[in-house]
Amino acid sequence: MDAAFQDFYAEKFSHCHGCGKNNPAGHHLKSRWDGDDTIARFLPKPEYSGGVPDHVYGGLIASLLDCHGAASAAAFAHRAQNREMGSEGEPIRYVTASLKVDFRRPTPMGIELVIKGKLRSMDERKVWVDLTLSANGEVCASGEMLAVRYRQ
Amino acid sequence: MDAAFQDFYAEKFSHCHGCGKNNPAGHHLKSRWDGDDTIARFLPKPEYSGGVPDHVYGGLIASLLDCHGAASAAAFAHRAQNREMGSEGEPIRYVTASLKVDFRRPTPMGIELVIKGKLRSMDERKVWVDLTLSANGEVCASGEMLAVRYRQ
Repeated sequence: MDAAFQDFYAEKFSHCHGCGKNNPAGHHLKSRWDGDDTIARFLPKPEYSGGVPDHVYGGLIASLLDCHGAASAAAFAHRAQNREMGSEGEPIRYVTASLKVDFRRPTPMGIELVIKGKLRSMDERKVWVDLTLSANGEVCASGEMLAVRYRQ
Repeated sequence: MDAAFQDFYAEKFSHCHGCGKNNPAGHHLKSRWDGDDTIARFLPKPEYSGGVPDHVYGGLIASLLDCHGAASAAAFAHRAQNREMGSEGEPIRYVTASLKVDFRRPTPMGIELVIKGKLRSMDERKVWVDLTLSANGEVCASGEMLAVRYRQ
């Protein structure tokens, strides 16, 4: 499978619990292109239940949207320069300034979740990303993120 | 120390990774009264780093605000009935419908975080809660939550 956006993060910035390849205890979320949009897939372990054991914990849902959104922002910014992550030139990295999550229905456990990102708009320093998290083809949570370019 | 709001959650709804007493792998966040507001304290383990090892991972910040906000909503609703959680009568429980988190500055690792909740408004079914997460007395993240009453 193609490398994920997070695989191109600099080593010293790869410790995120949600998506850093250098965090052995983390989730290792991997985000990739899906046409002009972005996609990641994740199967939560049973310990990530919400109040009831058969639903996913809201904190994990926010985390997946957060890590996928920030990685997507970086990918969108690279494409806007007609290049890909990992290509020559200065790497572009984003951090989350604001994240809103709407929990539309309970997210079931034991099913691979699909997280998608769509570019809403971009300026020189900021990227707005629309996000969804689905299970069995149904959107369980939607989100919107403002990501801000990080000066490394 | 007094019992926390989460200690009064029904056994079958106490499996949340963020705050459920019946989730052995979870964070066990504990929320309590602080006058008319609410408060929780939490020291993240080193594995919950963000991209850089000395900052807390955004997903954990969202999770702490989420669990504290939902517990606070339940506590506010009980007080509106002139009773406390765990008192006689039907227990009231809330779930998160929407959570917005603004990441204002990096949250440092190795420091006990203080999460606060304030009641903004309430109607028969919904509670709006304003939230902050601070380290060393500085607000690192702020949030707002819409919590909806859960019919058990």
